[in-house]
Amino acid sequence: MHSGMLRRFRVLTKARGPIYYVIAVFLIILVLRISLQLWCSMANSTEFAELTSEEVAGLSERERKFWLQLKKTHAEKEQLQQELASVRLSKGTESPGGTQSHVPAVESREDGRDDAAGCQKVSLSRCEQLQIAIVCSGFGASRDIVPLIKSILFYSHNPIHFHFISDQSARVVLDTLFKTWALPEVEVSYYPAEGLKSKVEWIPNRHYSQHFGMMKLLLTSVLPESLEKVLVLDTDLTFATDIAELWLLFRKLIEQGKSIGLVENQSDWYLGNIWKNHRPWPALGRGFNTGVMLMRLDEMRRLAWMQLWKMVAEKNLISYSSVSLADQDIINAVLKDHPDMHMTLPCTWNLQLSEHTLSEDCYSKVSELKVIHWNSPKKLAVKANNVEFFRNLYTTFLEYDGNLLRHRLPSGCGTLAPGQGAKKDPADDAEKCADFRQARETTYRTHLYYLNYEWPEFESNDVTLVTQLSMDRLQVLEALCDHWKGPMSLALFLSDSEAQQFLKYARESDVISSRTNIGFHIVYKAGGFYPVNYLRNVALNQVKQPYAFLSDIDFLPMYDMYAYIKTTLSKFETSSRSRKALVVPAFETLLYRMPFPKSKASLIQMLDDKKVFTFRFHVWPRGHAATDFDKWRTSTAPYKVKWAADFEPYVVVPANVTRYDLRFVGFGWNKVSHIMELDAQKYEFYVLPNAFIIHMPHAPSLDIAKFRSSKHYRECLKVLKAEFVEDLVKKYGFSAMKYKTLDQ
Amino acid sequence: MHSGMLRRFRVLTKARGPIYYVIAVFLIILVLRISLQLWCSMANSTEFAELTSEEVAGLSERERKFWLQLKKTHAEKEQLQQELASVRLSKGTESPGGTQSHVPAVESREDGRDDAAGCQKVSLSRCEQLQIAIVCSGFGASRDIVPLIKSILFYSHNPIHFHFISDQSARVVLDTLFKTWALPEVEVSYYPAEGLKSKVEWIPNRHYSQHFGMMKLLLTSVLPESLEKVLVLDTDLTFATDIAELWLLFRKLIEQGKSIGLVENQSDWYLGNIWKNHRPWPALGRGFNTGVMLMRLDEMRRLAWMQLWKMVAEKNLISYSSVSLADQDIINAVLKDHPDMHMTLPCTWNLQLSEHTLSEDCYSKVSELKVIHWNSPKKLAVKANNVEFFRNLYTTFLEYDGNLLRHRLPSGCGTLAPGQGAKKDPADDAEKCADFRQARETTYRTHLYYLNYEWPEFESNDVTLVTQLSMDRLQVLEALCDHWKGPMSLALFLSDSEAQQFLKYARESDVISSRTNIGFHIVYKAGGFYPVNYLRNVALNQVKQPYAFLSDIDFLPMYDMYAYIKTTLSKFETSSRSRKALVVPAFETLLYRMPFPKSKASLIQMLDDKKVFTFRFHVWPRGHAATDFDKWRTSTAPYKVKWAADFEPYVVVPANVTRYDLRFVGFGWNKVSHIMELDAQKYEFYVLPNAFIIHMPHAPSLDIAKFRSSKHYRECLKVLKAEFVEDLVKKYGFSAMKYKTLDQ
Repeated sequence: MHSGMLRRFRVLTKARGPIYYVIAVFLIILVLRISLQLWCSMANSTEFAELTSEEVAGLSERERKFWLQLKKTHAEKEQLQQELASVRLSKGTESPGGTQSHVPAVESREDGRDDAAGCQKVSLSRCEQLQIAIVCSGFGASRDIVPLIKSILFYSHNPIHFHFISDQSARVVLDTLFKTWALPEVEVSYYPAEGLKSKVEWIPNRHYSQHFGMMKLLLTSVLPESLEKVLVLDTDLTFATDIAELWLLFRKLIEQGKSIGLVENQSDWYLGNIWKNHRPWPALGRGFNTGVMLMRLDEMRRLAWMQLWKMVAEKNLISYSSVSLADQDIINAVLKDHPDMHMTLPCTWNLQLSEHTLSEDCYSKVSELKVIHWNSPKKLAVKANNVEFFRNLYTTFLEYDGNLLRHRLPSGCGTLAPGQGAKKDPADDAEKCADFRQARETTYRTHLYYLNYEWPEFESNDVTLVTQLSMDRLQVLEALCDHWKGPMSLALFLSDSEAQQFLKYARESDVISSRTNIGFHIVYKAGGFYPVNYLRNVALNQVKQPYAFLSDIDFLPMYDMYAYIKTTLSKFETSSRSRKALVVPAFETLLYRMPFPKSKASLIQMLDDKKVFTFRFHVWPRGHAATDFDKWRTSTAPYKVKWAADFEPYVVVPANVTRYDLRFVGFGWNKVSHIMELDAQKYEFYVLPNAFIIHMPHAPSLDIAKFRSSKHYRECLKVLKAEFVEDLVKKYGFSAMKYKTLDQ
Repeated sequence: MHSGMLRRFRVLTKARGPIYYVIAVFLIILVLRISLQLWCSMANSTEFAELTSEEVAGLSERERKFWLQLKKTHAEKEQLQQELASVRLSKGTESPGGTQSHVPAVESREDGRDDAAGCQKVSLSRCEQLQIAIVCSGFGASRDIVPLIKSILFYSHNPIHFHFISDQSARVVLDTLFKTWALPEVEVSYYPAEGLKSKVEWIPNRHYSQHFGMMKLLLTSVLPESLEKVLVLDTDLTFATDIAELWLLFRKLIEQGKSIGLVENQSDWYLGNIWKNHRPWPALGRGFNTGVMLMRLDEMRRLAWMQLWKMVAEKNLISYSSVSLADQDIINAVLKDHPDMHMTLPCTWNLQLSEHTLSEDCYSKVSELKVIHWNSPKKLAVKANNVEFFRNLYTTFLEYDGNLLRHRLPSGCGTLAPGQGAKKDPADDAEKCADFRQARETTYRTHLYYLNYEWPEFESNDVTLVTQLSMDRLQVLEALCDHWKGPMSLALFLSDSEAQQFLKYARESDVISSRTNIGFHIVYKAGGFYPVNYLRNVALNQVKQPYAFLSDIDFLPMYDMYAYIKTTLSKFETSSRSRKALVVPAFETLLYRMPFPKSKASLIQMLDDKKVFTFRFHVWPRGHAATDFDKWRTSTAPYKVKWAADFEPYVVVPANVTRYDLRFVGFGWNKVSHIMELDAQKYEFYVLPNAFIIHMPHAPSLDIAKFRSSKHYRECLKVLKAEFVEDLVKKYGFSAMKYKTLDQ
């Protein structure tokens, strides 16, 4: 290049024509521009670490040679920088940092925003909805996808439409999660994977994602015809920037007339040198990773994408017999055959943290991280340089309180759902028990089936234990699992970070992790109350079996109770629609180390020895007096008892039983009201003669202590009780009038 | 080569219009120099030989790193050459990376990076250290400043130097916090506020910040002469963007020749129409808010800032008698008199959420938020539109796990402190009890005096109760406060979000919030262990009184024990340097509702009734047998007992007692080792005849359960015990040999 320049100048000096001066000036400008650009790009790339003399001394001969070369380059560059700066000064060109020449014409912006330095960023209209497609199947992926969703929403300002290709499990989880999350300006659509299986399962696939991994190939036909472009994401990504920046790259894609944008693969896989006889599918160079893709669906449809990839797949399957990396093999083979289809995205948009990744080259070049891809099968446990930094970013969103994403500034796009982002009516606050009423109205973000769960098969006498707990009762779960082998539906009131602790605890516990008949439903903490009845309803709503045993977390049932109740139900009950409630007598112990009674006989012995008492015998006998414990001692068959005021037994009822009343959010009347409504519905109460549960002692929870001492709480509870009875009368008529007098 | 060129140009200049030639020659020389040097340096830096894969495999880790860097440079150069060629071809009209209109002139960039849209951002060198000055005094402000620090560091990539003007309380807290936080590339300096008080207290001030609020005026004289510019921040800010963007505005400030940059006040205060007879200090228009300021200290010093503001203050105090808004009144008055000094910053850099704020105009205009300022005296409880959104952002950083900020990507600035950001030696992981050893080496981020605390005055017989706890024991704090009225030093092992729950709990508790003689020290959770001895040492290190009572959180002392111990100490001990340990006999109850014995007599009665037992009587009598409970029943004076193996009494000792051994991180031997070391130091053990503590029952904690069942834990504990005894022998010589035989 330089010798060429020189020759031109020589020619110039000989010719002396005025036209050459113009050329000369033009060339000078050109060279200046090029030089400076060169300098700029070099400035970016040379983060050079100085070594101490000790460190240098420790270098080998070859290392020292390398290092000296680097050092020299670095020094030369620094000198150049200084010279350039002084040249600029003496030339009187503007200093950097926002004089007018730094601001390009505003006309070319669609929605220009000044950044601090006065550089007008090309940016999206805040109202443009971004389209994101994700294949997500199973309970595990539905859980693991949440940090991705949070990281996207944390940085994003645009309305977003998620398109999930999902199986039934993921649909149940995600649908409830998004509905209860109530995120403003977030739309969600589901496309059942079940119907798509046949379209991809003909391709033999050795990848752990199974046929779900292949479904990304089907997006042009699965997503609505009207959808022209979509970002296609894997579930194991973490965003470190506004996804709108990625969306903006569609403009380049369109400009260049390409259909698919993706990042180069950051491993040597497609180079075929991983191991001996390693035969990867064909790919351009080191191939592409399909974890982050820009898809112009309209263009792909025009190119008959569905036929295209099928043809390529069929052709290659003749010689390869199966794919190893799911859709990625096929897409790479397509791009190899049709190299005009794609545009390569900057590597930071898919920083692949697999083992032996070359990603370090990427993020040392560009200091701004965009998307991290945990594409190693080891996921977070992958060993890579700086992985702790990346893990921390991931953990940030893992533990991030998702409720904090519920509020947005008004965008003026008219896409905020009603009520979302709206201010509370300040008049509400003034009302006396406003805090209780607000808690009743709260929708708690809910993640059903947080751990693995098998959709059950069951008989008509099957029963699920239903209860709720918070973090401070986690340690009783193993004992409960030990005492109750049947299905359980548990609602856990946890913060996002507590949910992670729970996950860790459950994984490390053989007792818990071996069970697949327990639905663990996380209800995320919000507000100042423990919404006990909301939690009970969440758990109750997920009971698949015909009967539910409504218990509390501090009780341990006798060892063989699951079998006993099933037997009783098959003998005693005929239909799960009958209005019978089977009362399980409740006891308590004040001893915190106690051998659990193995039989009714030994329980009665312990009662006589005063090691065990009927539940709340000392403080609130009314709650269980109606159980008639004296009769129970000698009964051998279920006996009917009459409802009485303040009765709050633990009962086995049909799973379609009326739900708990949500106005009772703290401690007090939360069970009493439910049993009262059962009575209003003419339920009959039968006490089980050979069942019992025992309340295990624990330090009082913070909440109970708070509420017991609060005058405000007691007053509001009174108000709520009266309102509840009023509602019963409205609902069940004259017969419910008796509760009004009883309550006085 | 150059001289030849020059000659030719000289010929040229003679032939044509001389003035143009001079310019042309000058430019050509310039351009050639730059181009050639650039070329030379590039040529030098690319002595790059492609290595075969075999040769690469033969490289050491470090060689490979160097080689990769070289390779990268080479590749970049090649790419640049290609680009240059193509640019030359197309006559240099377009530049790479985006359509031309989006790309501003490259010449003016100092360190341009392409963003997604191809807009070259003016940005800082990643190595430029940002200077931030904050006035922070008292325990409250030291706590409230943490979310600000976190929000700054979350978004920032640059090295940062914090300059704190602080009183003793803030210094103790912040110094420990930053030292234990171990943030890479963060430097901290302190400037004692005590010495500055006299310089501002002559100004009558009605603002709640008192004279601390005025100290921002002193920055030109307080901060080092070498510091040319500094960002001045209030403590009640939350950043929503990279603070480097704010720092960049210094360029504009310099360009415009201004000294101070600040944001307009977003209330009507200085318009003087807030209430009748409201007479605000003079200001330009609606005045400026001083919560966020850019200060060019060099320029301000040149303008004799210290004299300037004093003169203006004196002048105005004649008619106003006092300031209402601290430094803000005075700075506004200065700017009114000297309107050329300041530059107005965009309003988003200080979004003021006071009541009746006009800030909504700001953020509806500019959708990008930069800094939120909770400048209402009501702080987070302020009522304003969209305040829930802002509160969520604040809460994000309030609850953000600060440990996640401990890792950074290597910046290459050479400012990473040793060990920070470094990878762990993988060899460590392989060792058997590596997890224990690592826990021992962990520095836990520590926030001393999280709640208000009064520096105590005390007599020579005063004693502090020392203990530690985690979240699940919070509910015992009130009872403990009730039983022990004396000073306490408590270490709490909490996550950032649990610390907020603790704060809320403590504020709502009259019992706790009324105490100012308890040091609550938060040690932030990290790793998988409960570092019980680390916690004990944190608490012990903060004991100001001469004696410490080393207890555990599940024990309640008898009601008048504080007074009793003090009396005993004044009678029994003569010097806090004497080597005596006073043993407090420990008991336990299995009953979780029990009337607490009011006297030794009633305790003995309960012992006889088997309602109370000596501590761990059933499971581990050796731990306290040496207390000699039989003798205790009848003793009326302290009696001496001999140390025995596994003795782990609760003791009153001089506060300068040897610290607990950090290798015991879980449950087991954590107290035994300490008492053993006291014995090695020839401590004498005296049992207190009229003191007792009782262990209250609780459900087993998750940790205990985990460790009890872990074979790995038991094996490592054995290893650690042996090592500890070895160390005792090394430290105390032959006399400590007895522990070796005992341990077998």
